[in-house]
Amino acid sequence: MESFLGEFLGTMILIILGAGINAGVKLKGTFANNNGDWLLISFGWGMAVTMGVYVAGHLGSNAHLNPAVTISFALFGMFPWNQVLPYLIGQFFGAFVGAGLVIVQFYPHFKVSKNEADGNSVGIFATGPAIKNTLFNFLSEVIATFTFIFVLLSLGDFAAGLKPLVVGFVILAIGMSLGTTTGYAINPARDWGPRLAYTILPVPHRGATNWAYAWIPMVGPIVGGILAAGLFKIV
Amino acid sequence: MESFLGEFLGTMILIILGAGINAGVKLKGTFANNNGDWLLISFGWGMAVTMGVYVAGHLGSNAHLNPAVTISFALFGMFPWNQVLPYLIGQFFGAFVGAGLVIVQFYPHFKVSKNEADGNSVGIFATGPAIKNTLFNFLSEVIATFTFIFVLLSLGDFAAGLKPLVVGFVILAIGMSLGTTTGYAINPARDWGPRLAYTILPVPHRGATNWAYAWIPMVGPIVGGILAAGLFKIV
Amino acid sequence: MESFLGEFLGTMILIILGAGINAGVKLKGTFANNNGDWLLISFGWGMAVTMGVYVAGHLGSNAHLNPAVTISFALFGMFPWNQVLPYLIGQFFGAFVGAGLVIVQFYPHFKVSKNEADGNSVGIFATGPAIKNTLFNFLSEVIATFTFIFVLLSLGDFAAGLKPLVVGFVILAIGMSLGTTTGYAINPARDWGPRLAYTILPVPHRGATNWAYAWIPMVGPIVGGILAAGLFKIV
Amino acid sequence: MESFLGEFLGTMILIILGAGINAGVKLKGTFANNNGDWLLISFGWGMAVTMGVYVAGHLGSNAHLNPAVTISFALFGMFPWNQVLPYLIGQFFGAFVGAGLVIVQFYPHFKVSKNEADGNSVGIFATGPAIKNTLFNFLSEVIATFTFIFVLLSLGDFAAGLKPLVVGFVILAIGMSLGTTTGYAINPARDWGPRLAYTILPVPHRGATNWAYAWIPMVGPIVGGILAAGLFKIV
Repeated sequence: MESFLGEFLGTMILIILGAGINAGVKLKGTFANNNGDWLLISFGWGMAVTMGVYVAGHLGSNAHLNPAVTISFALFGMFPWNQVLPYLIGQFFGAFVGAGLVIVQFYPHFKVSKNEADGNSVGIFATGPAIKNTLFNFLSEVIATFTFIFVLLSLGDFAAGLKPLVVGFVILAIGMSLGTTTGYAINPARDWGPRLAYTILPVPHRGATNWAYAWIPMVGPIVGGILAAGLFKIV
Repeated sequence: MESFLGEFLGTMILIILGAGINAGVKLKGTFANNNGDWLLISFGWGMAVTMGVYVAGHLGSNAHLNPAVTISFALFGMFPWNQVLPYLIGQFFGAFVGAGLVIVQFYPHFKVSKNEADGNSVGIFATGPAIKNTLFNFLSEVIATFTFIFVLLSLGDFAAGLKPLVVGFVILAIGMSLGTTTGYAINPARDWGPRLAYTILPVPHRGATNWAYAWIPMVGPIVGGILAAGLFKIV
Repeated sequence: MESFLGEFLGTMILIILGAGINAGVKLKGTFANNNGDWLLISFGWGMAVTMGVYVAGHLGSNAHLNPAVTISFALFGMFPWNQVLPYLIGQFFGAFVGAGLVIVQFYPHFKVSKNEADGNSVGIFATGPAIKNTLFNFLSEVIATFTFIFVLLSLGDFAAGLKPLVVGFVILAIGMSLGTTTGYAINPARDWGPRLAYTILPVPHRGATNWAYAWIPMVGPIVGGILAAGLFKIV
Repeated sequence: MESFLGEFLGTMILIILGAGINAGVKLKGTFANNNGDWLLISFGWGMAVTMGVYVAGHLGSNAHLNPAVTISFALFGMFPWNQVLPYLIGQFFGAFVGAGLVIVQFYPHFKVSKNEADGNSVGIFATGPAIKNTLFNFLSEVIATFTFIFVLLSLGDFAAGLKPLVVGFVILAIGMSLGTTTGYAINPARDWGPRLAYTILPVPHRGATNWAYAWIPMVGPIVGGILAAGLFKIV
């Protein structure tokens, strides 16, 4: 239960702040609509992760907030297997609830954003490719997650002191660069939880949910994480 | 008196720097007019809070700078009730004085900004909704303040060392995302003190002061703060 | 001599990086021309100060880099009077030399920027008001410097550890907000040293040097600094 | 071998993230195309260096990631000569491999960017002057690298704790200001490794590789580094 709680609340905060950025930039009538750029978005997601790590870390979790982290760490003996399931459940469920709160926060803006051209699209909640190409979209998520988790492992205890700020800057760095191809899921929970929320919760004028693409932000990050943790163990 | 002083000067600095951002972006003829975006504004308010926390913390206050923090902490036994009143007075009075100094700083720009279309509006000093909707505007302030104070509580002693910088990044993260709906008061003093200053001080070409909306940035943050402190106590 | 050296090299670095930002944004043909906004400029000056503080601090100086700091600290017993002169000389001379290096760095860009409309103006090196108004321009510098130095004093030992980063964020916060009226000299050396360099060094197509305004960024910051240090001593 | 590994992987991460920024901003169809400015680019490269330093430092290297650092430190007795060669090999080879991964990450975008006007140019991978002028381009790299390495030396142990974040902010500060003339190589490996990758790897629609310019980002940074390390030793 304790394992679950930190991951649940940390991932919830991550998605409230992260999907909140996307909603603010994309939906009609917000203060940031047409008033921000890629730096705003990637800075926002970076700081969202920082705050999620602080929340999770304070509750005694290892502040993974990301199944690709949990699974790859477990595979290479850096995390106990018996905690994997509560961590994963907390991550996906927290991401789902966080997305639900973003829907409430921006409800009047969903109402005036009547179609995908108005920004009311699954892209607020989940990732999609800039150019559709199955092989390279998959490789993009692998490379971005590999980079993320390899750097993360190099930080030492990333949930302590001011290190969560550095974790946020890692996400910022990834987002500004490698993130411009597939929107850097680099985290299956960050993609699936909010995608499910956009699919089943009562969002006005909901657009397509694009589950056909969803295997890539699920499998790509896990593969990238395993490569990173494996290489880290070797070196 | 000592309780009062830190909160007074800290909140004064917060509003000098925060309302200063808004004035610089909105008023005619400044160097930032039409020369910044939502990232500038949210970064500016974030750093404004950081500096307020340093000033208040150095003077021995707990660096709340925010009645929603003070009241919710007191309600859940994390702050002594007998200091609540001097804290609140310091916060509102500091915010008022800070706004007065912003009026002096930008006086020539208020003079050339002859109406609300020129940016001479209460929005420099106080918050307002992007889309007017009483229920959801209220919920926006509740959710944003809940998120803010829950993360704040997870930081540990947020006035010490480099933690005030992290507090600023929390405000930045909130501002970039949840702040794009109602302008993230998340602090009754930050809204009411400067709103009062814009109302009663001699501002050239003053616009409407919109006190009808002011209960939302008063009640919403307090409710959000109570929910955050309550949940924090439970978990 | 040791007092001089840290201030000289620290202020030189400050101006290389700070005036370099201005040159990059204003002069024709650079990569940042028409490709940045007020956040770029204020972030750049903030980080310029951070780096100057690291350099000066490493050489054993108190990393003032600013006559308003040195004079106001000395007046209130926070700095020995017998070091004031070498500090001031180091600051003005370092700012002059730093500006000279910026002229070299951007020499081809000065050559293609044939007049003030092309950005070849004293504004690269020194400050000027957005709206000319002697009283309020003066008050702007007083209020901005008061805010800067009062926060600076609240940081504790600002040249140690990671605090120089916080000093940079103070400058960033001031620049984003109060800086949008007079360009936030808040430092007589930062204004006069580079202004002199633009006046007497061989700059192609040099514009007006506006020494008529220069007393404001000299006197305003010193008055603001004295008010801040005085209030700090009282509280 | 251990000397090699940290520099190899650290520089690889540096270039993945840094050249990734350039690819995202320049190539057609990415999320950041026409959606960022000079701050995005310089922030991105700054954080890229931070992450490279963390990775290299964690593996026990001194986290130079830059031949100009290694050579100038060795020349003034701050680095053992017998490790210079493995460091240099690691740096150039890491930069080459990092650039190769950027080509994979952005492959579909290279395919749709059919010529240099579409952003498919060596400028993604290597530097070039804003205004061609051999003498001043060379001096630009000398001054920028001098500034970089002199500040770097003032940071103390720059690979420990949170100092890698400060190193990133040094790069950011340089990039925002001095970088706007020649694109701030300030590092021969950062220029030559990726330039070679763009030259010999199978990049669709490859543009000119401009090796005629490449001696400047090789010699300029080394000269600048020697001046910085020499002055540092003297003072």
